[in-house]
Amino acid sequence: MTTQDIPQFDRFEAAFPESAMGGTPDGGEALSAAFVHEDGGAPEHVFGFRDGGGLCRLRFMPRRVGRYSAVVRSPDPAIDGTVLAFVCAPARSGVHGRVLPMDEARGRPDPDGEEHLRFAYEDGVRFQPLGTTCYAWVHQTEAVQQQTLETLRSAPFNKVRMCVFPKFYDYCREDPDCYPFEGDASRGFDFTRFNPVFWQKLERRIAQLGELGIEADLILFHPYDRWGFATMDAETDDRYLRYAVDRLAAFRNIWWSFANEYDLMEAKTAADWNRFGELVRARDPYGHLRSVHNCRDHYDFSLPWVTHACIQRTDMYRTTEYVDEWRTRYRKPVVVDECAYEGDIEHGWGNLAGEELVRRFWEAFLRGGYASHGEVYVRNPRLWWAHGGRLYGTAPSRLAFLRRIMEETPECAVPLSHAAGDPGSAWDVPALGDKEGASFFLYYFGFLRPSYRHFSLPGGADYEAEVLDTWNGTVEKLPGTYRGRFRIELPARAYMAVRFRLCASGRAD
Amino acid sequence: MTTQDIPQFDRFEAAFPESAMGGTPDGGEALSAAFVHEDGGAPEHVFGFRDGGGLCRLRFMPRRVGRYSAVVRSPDPAIDGTVLAFVCAPARSGVHGRVLPMDEARGRPDPDGEEHLRFAYEDGVRFQPLGTTCYAWVHQTEAVQQQTLETLRSAPFNKVRMCVFPKFYDYCREDPDCYPFEGDASRGFDFTRFNPVFWQKLERRIAQLGELGIEADLILFHPYDRWGFATMDAETDDRYLRYAVDRLAAFRNIWWSFANEYDLMEAKTAADWNRFGELVRARDPYGHLRSVHNCRDHYDFSLPWVTHACIQRTDMYRTTEYVDEWRTRYRKPVVVDECAYEGDIEHGWGNLAGEELVRRFWEAFLRGGYASHGEVYVRNPRLWWAHGGRLYGTAPSRLAFLRRIMEETPECAVPLSHAAGDPGSAWDVPALGDKEGASFFLYYFGFLRPSYRHFSLPGGADYEAEVLDTWNGTVEKLPGTYRGRFRIELPARAYMAVRFRLCASGRAD
Repeated sequence: MTTQDIPQFDRFEAAFPESAMGGTPDGGEALSAAFVHEDGGAPEHVFGFRDGGGLCRLRFMPRRVGRYSAVVRSPDPAIDGTVLAFVCAPARSGVHGRVLPMDEARGRPDPDGEEHLRFAYEDGVRFQPLGTTCYAWVHQTEAVQQQTLETLRSAPFNKVRMCVFPKFYDYCREDPDCYPFEGDASRGFDFTRFNPVFWQKLERRIAQLGELGIEADLILFHPYDRWGFATMDAETDDRYLRYAVDRLAAFRNIWWSFANEYDLMEAKTAADWNRFGELVRARDPYGHLRSVHNCRDHYDFSLPWVTHACIQRTDMYRTTEYVDEWRTRYRKPVVVDECAYEGDIEHGWGNLAGEELVRRFWEAFLRGGYASHGEVYVRNPRLWWAHGGRLYGTAPSRLAFLRRIMEETPECAVPLSHAAGDPGSAWDVPALGDKEGASFFLYYFGFLRPSYRHFSLPGGADYEAEVLDTWNGTVEKLPGTYRGRFRIELPARAYMAVRFRLCASGRAD
Repeated sequence: MTTQDIPQFDRFEAAFPESAMGGTPDGGEALSAAFVHEDGGAPEHVFGFRDGGGLCRLRFMPRRVGRYSAVVRSPDPAIDGTVLAFVCAPARSGVHGRVLPMDEARGRPDPDGEEHLRFAYEDGVRFQPLGTTCYAWVHQTEAVQQQTLETLRSAPFNKVRMCVFPKFYDYCREDPDCYPFEGDASRGFDFTRFNPVFWQKLERRIAQLGELGIEADLILFHPYDRWGFATMDAETDDRYLRYAVDRLAAFRNIWWSFANEYDLMEAKTAADWNRFGELVRARDPYGHLRSVHNCRDHYDFSLPWVTHACIQRTDMYRTTEYVDEWRTRYRKPVVVDECAYEGDIEHGWGNLAGEELVRRFWEAFLRGGYASHGEVYVRNPRLWWAHGGRLYGTAPSRLAFLRRIMEETPECAVPLSHAAGDPGSAWDVPALGDKEGASFFLYYFGFLRPSYRHFSLPGGADYEAEVLDTWNGTVEKLPGTYRGRFRIELPARAYMAVRFRLCASGRAD
């Protein structure tokens, strides 16, 4: 069997009659294939899954340009031994593959280095998450889902936290029109049979996000349940995870988030979470990102299969201000996936002003990490955080400005305490500096409102200075250049930042 | 010698020719008297001090109505043995005596109880500090000092942090017109001779504050010095402290604050601070409050001579939010005397919005402690925090509202985690509850902006509900009464609070 060329990081797929799985359940190993590249390297194993209509499928994401082939293994002698082959073409424009820890993406693992605290796509391009949260968006009506995609198209977000299972919680108590398992809320569910209609929808949404350049931070378990999905037995949990991996791992933009608020899932033990992580690590041939999100206590991000810290703040006041400490503690990229949301609901996690949410993003950025957005205004027909739909808040346009500044920030930028030299002017505010060459400095004042500020930059070099209004989204280039110790006038307003860049002609002596 | 009647907590004073001190230096024990009350009790020892014009004085603050007498001890045989006597009359209206830990003020020491974490005047009336900061106000021109007093007359503050020594720091670098020691900046100082002109001015200001109902939180040492006062030798330090006590302890509104930012005074050791504390404890016959203010690290408030925690926040983000933890740690009243100031200077301790400073006061209050104000706007002719003068900021009028609410808060109110019952509706916001009778609850939302909130108050009782806008200074009484679990509508604005009071007819079953 041959097929058309598949661009790097897109999906190769082969369909078979259901007999290919020989009557064994999904999540097993009955149907499989080991893909090998013409230039060698370890074979990559994928497993088949039923997809309704009497068909089952094998999926594979090629990552190297050139010819791939695989021999299919099946209990059906008519299928066993089938050879699959295709040519992997160069990636489409804008497609960069999976997101990984930057050091791994660039093929130079360095667990003690700054690149181990950052992300990059597997083609090496830096990825700086700026997430949002739409937990149950795939469980809404088709019209709302389309509106969500339309909103995301022009929003600044490049990652979405979203659940496989529907959600039962304040403001979100409706039954969806289909479920990951066959059955429904009144009849009950057959936990041995996956519902292909649901999974086809889910993967279509993941693919659509991928086309928008958005990572799908897929939440595999969560406690807000009335259907029994939070209390399945271990065998069912594991089968479900294998099925999810077999179906979805070939989507380049998948992240595996084992839980939202793992510590509220009373039916699960520490051993369960660890088993889930090890299971997915072993099953996923590509090694997508893996983490576990907390409510009261951080998960143990030092476990070997955890790729990054996925944190809900546990302090009502200091949230992303801890990012630099968490980087030091976990030595992995830090994403604060809940630092509370913009909105006006009654819960303290969902009634921040846009200003405060955006401030928390900037704090995360200035401390070498990342944050995620959510919006929960009760006056709107639906709350973005659960349903998707439209955004009404004040934060997103400001986060677009932050995204621009993040993209303009050179990779050499690290929290100032780790930067080269000691500019000595940031005891009270977070700042970024150049880890080697003193080429870049960024100071962020948050809710502080200085009317001026002295800076001391490394001597013998000239810098251009810009005053950023991070709320109003302006960058004011100051006339002239600056050297050594000097004073910058500021507007005595909150949410200002000052950026210095070494003049092209102003290298240090 | 007899004199006119002296009201309780005012000053008895006797003057002598300087020969009464027999040529011994100030701060010694040459001239002394032991006052005894006609009804008995331990004698109270006071020591004399030179006051210029060839005179020296003995001062005493009577605290019990009735007849006092004392025999003077002096090296001058003509004075030695003089008998002093006066009648102590009831206190003038509005005069309540010294501020002490509440349990001590009420004569029932209880180091483990709530009253050990609060203050009261020695007549038992509760004192809830609401401080401000005018470090060097007594070193300004007479006109500015008068303006400061005029400002304080209508301001909400009942405590002022103020230095004995002049201050040399940003925005405050002028030489004063007189110093605590004889001499000046060009000639140098005679550290054995106190300058009565300065001390007369200082004590006049302390007395004027007292008449305004304001405590003088007198800072005895600080590091912002160019005259040598921060680096005197131990003998001079001790003599200075004894002189200060001998002169000033008879002022009922004195608090002894051994330092501003003790840990920046490199010439002083831990042993020095402890010696200072013990020295003043032994010398001061009245036992005025004693503490030490920090920069980087809290002083050891568990030392036996320390009466309360006097704290500068050491975290840029969480400040007064730690008050309940500090109460637990130190088991003494907690005053956050620097949680940063309203203003627009360059330093992170001095460019808060009024909103944020007021929010920090409310956090302190809701957590069972107290905060202090300061104002540092560079656009004004002088910065209140150093000079006094006028207030320009937005905080003081809002702090007046807080003071009203504090005064309306019953003494039974304690941080909710220590209150009787568990209303169970405050995981995310600070709250006060009744430590015994469920008669009072106060929830404060700070920067959170709920549009509504469910509360669960102890069952079987009816409560009146009020919505407080702590920034705009309004109290809205809601119609009807509330019982059990219910919902309150809120305006989705920051800085709101909700207060519940048990209806007179609504006692719990």
